[in-house]
Amino acid sequence: MYALNATHSPDLVSWVESANQPETDFPIQNLPYCVFKTPGNPASIGIGIGDQILNLRACGESGLLNPRFASVSKQPTLNQLMALPPTEQSQLRGRIVELLSEGSPDADKIANTALVPQSDVEFLMPCNIGDYSDFYASVYHATNVGSMFRPDNPLLPNYKHIPIGYHGRASSIVVSGTPIRRPVGQLTPTEPGAAPTRDACKLFDYELEVGCLVGQGNQLGESVSIDNAESHMFGLTLLNDWSARDIQKWEYQPLGPFLAKSFASTISPWIVTMEALAPFRCPEFKRDAEDPRPLNYLASDSNSKFGGIDLQLEVYLLTEQMQQQGFKPQLLTRGSFTNLYWTFAQMLTHHSSNGCNLRPGDMLGSGTVSGQTRDSRGCMLELTWDGDQQNALPGSQRTPIKFPTGEERKFLADGDSVIFRGFCETSDHRRIGFGTCMGQVLPASQSN
Amino acid sequence: MYALNATHSPDLVSWVESANQPETDFPIQNLPYCVFKTPGNPASIGIGIGDQILNLRACGESGLLNPRFASVSKQPTLNQLMALPPTEQSQLRGRIVELLSEGSPDADKIANTALVPQSDVEFLMPCNIGDYSDFYASVYHATNVGSMFRPDNPLLPNYKHIPIGYHGRASSIVVSGTPIRRPVGQLTPTEPGAAPTRDACKLFDYELEVGCLVGQGNQLGESVSIDNAESHMFGLTLLNDWSARDIQKWEYQPLGPFLAKSFASTISPWIVTMEALAPFRCPEFKRDAEDPRPLNYLASDSNSKFGGIDLQLEVYLLTEQMQQQGFKPQLLTRGSFTNLYWTFAQMLTHHSSNGCNLRPGDMLGSGTVSGQTRDSRGCMLELTWDGDQQNALPGSQRTPIKFPTGEERKFLADGDSVIFRGFCETSDHRRIGFGTCMGQVLPASQSN
Repeated sequence: MYALNATHSPDLVSWVESANQPETDFPIQNLPYCVFKTPGNPASIGIGIGDQILNLRACGESGLLNPRFASVSKQPTLNQLMALPPTEQSQLRGRIVELLSEGSPDADKIANTALVPQSDVEFLMPCNIGDYSDFYASVYHATNVGSMFRPDNPLLPNYKHIPIGYHGRASSIVVSGTPIRRPVGQLTPTEPGAAPTRDACKLFDYELEVGCLVGQGNQLGESVSIDNAESHMFGLTLLNDWSARDIQKWEYQPLGPFLAKSFASTISPWIVTMEALAPFRCPEFKRDAEDPRPLNYLASDSNSKFGGIDLQLEVYLLTEQMQQQGFKPQLLTRGSFTNLYWTFAQMLTHHSSNGCNLRPGDMLGSGTVSGQTRDSRGCMLELTWDGDQQNALPGSQRTPIKFPTGEERKFLADGDSVIFRGFCETSDHRRIGFGTCMGQVLPASQSN
Repeated sequence: MYALNATHSPDLVSWVESANQPETDFPIQNLPYCVFKTPGNPASIGIGIGDQILNLRACGESGLLNPRFASVSKQPTLNQLMALPPTEQSQLRGRIVELLSEGSPDADKIANTALVPQSDVEFLMPCNIGDYSDFYASVYHATNVGSMFRPDNPLLPNYKHIPIGYHGRASSIVVSGTPIRRPVGQLTPTEPGAAPTRDACKLFDYELEVGCLVGQGNQLGESVSIDNAESHMFGLTLLNDWSARDIQKWEYQPLGPFLAKSFASTISPWIVTMEALAPFRCPEFKRDAEDPRPLNYLASDSNSKFGGIDLQLEVYLLTEQMQQQGFKPQLLTRGSFTNLYWTFAQMLTHHSSNGCNLRPGDMLGSGTVSGQTRDSRGCMLELTWDGDQQNALPGSQRTPIKFPTGEERKFLADGDSVIFRGFCETSDHRRIGFGTCMGQVLPASQSN
């Protein structure tokens, strides 16, 4: 499945001009999926190409797809398309490349009936996410956060044996652009034995993650081997797992985070397929000599050599004041997906190893992508932490991030917009991009 | 919403004879919903009456329901029906009572076209459960389990302030009767620093729970007040939250149980509506004088007086040897839902208090229903525990349960069937019953 084919050729050129610009996220080698809507028309599956969207539904209706692909192209979500076996996914990708390549005999027909500017559409959730499971796969994130919550015991003994994960909330996953209301919740009592308070979250944070959308499912009671795991992965999306750190601290023992997470998670509108990412596969995380080898069910030669993804990630913050004063969004974090201790194949295999059924459209979150350096930490909890293990959560001793407007942030303020970007880049700087994942913080509701 | 009406009258008699027998779970005062299938016919919504099912789809097709109810009766799941406001739920219940009451002018028509014996059907999942959240609402269960996992700190400081819960896995929820495969997983290393082993779960357990199915949903970003919570509850079902205790012990820190739970949960086919349970509402859990009062958002006069449900629960075990030797299932546990520290209204309000959206068909699990006495403990982890805090999980020091076949159990063996029953009972011993929730343990898969 890592084989490169004609659809990855750097020589491919599209008749959609904007797809050939060097700065585009969406050259013809990418072709990420989305679901979008224009006024008066039904929700449609689309494919990003330059600054345009190829309307897959319209292609099917115009007779440009074979009957099987035309059937899945009619759906208002990607779930049926995701359930296709990888060989058929690959055929569909090949057909789309044909349609969009320079010299396509159907270019005029498509330009007239099946192409719509991205700026003219409303993006919808690309699929029905049945279950969302969130992992914790960056050892740097786990160590940093563990140092704050459990200074005597930051990295637990299971961490390097198990891809630690937990069940998340699917109902509150929203697409990029949806405003995010600051949650209200119970906060830790100010002194032991006192009652907790109930208030708006004060330590409001984002988490820079990547979501892996499941393609083919597995039956309940059957597991997916590490060698088959990639064939159950449809593609990746950017994921902001918004977090209420103060709510989390009080509620998370003994059963894990709950309301600190379930108020919202944001994904980018685009799902970049595993096939588009084939040129950017790289070895899994380089473990230290003293680190344990993964148990057999989590180890394979293929995963070891190609399980990683050389995907670069960025987080930007845009305050209301920056907007008013004409500042661009300010870079907070630049990270790499190669910092993950576990690959998505290992996470998916582990998830199914007890017989749990994964369904097309289910999502696995990577957990916060943090690297070793301060500027690669994937959330404000880590970015503003000065490493003092006693300084777990309270804001007072944290080192604020300073901005050219004169503003400072230890955590997110109302009105702040958090913007993720992600891209794989070739040596000649062409990108397979993920677009953006954006959400603006609204003030807490008074009625809550 | 607690008002009793004509549909609760003990004087109601049905023309379906079996519904009038004193031992039935399904008198005309109950009318629980299910979804079932008979060969050659589509999945249909049904209503339990005696040993029969009223086919609601057939009623709609025969013109016995108004157009709005006929529309929801055509669906293959209960989700649309669950989304109806309580006033319409109540009208539908009233109409069904009319149809099934002695003297109904439609009795012959129904008997000929819309009545099917329960023994002739295959039960399906009654609804699409979008998200499943599991709580931990029995203070006795939390204290017992806490004593085993954290002897120095059994009941954490947050327990009496927060209805502790966590996100569960929705994809692997199955209907009663589905066999349950023993999971395989990573087990705690036998000595500190050693590698974990990977093996079939040895400490396989059930958890006696009650599931609350959400009716009307709430919008993302809006919360449900404690006084409105009951109007978002459609009904209750029996829930077995199968648990792999050894997998749980190794994986659950720091983010909570994951693969120890996600391999399967079983629900009974029947959903008993909140309206049917109205005669059995009782005060919330009686807190000790030194217990904290719930925070305001979790407290109301109505919840205090009527938030509880006087529901009795039973667990039976049937081994293969018992079956062969003609023994009946053996009673393991007899418990009461009144032992829960938190009411479902409090759990639902807390769940939505951060703005998390609950959708029709989402399920809240109560957590294991355990009482103060040994014979009311709701799982084998507690039943075979002798109270020695050092004796956390290993089987050796546990007190086995002994059966008339000479068999003993500390945890579940392959071939064992676990059967839950639940019922509310009037003073003259008529029941609003929940039917049964059953699952048989299959051996672990060799290929996992």
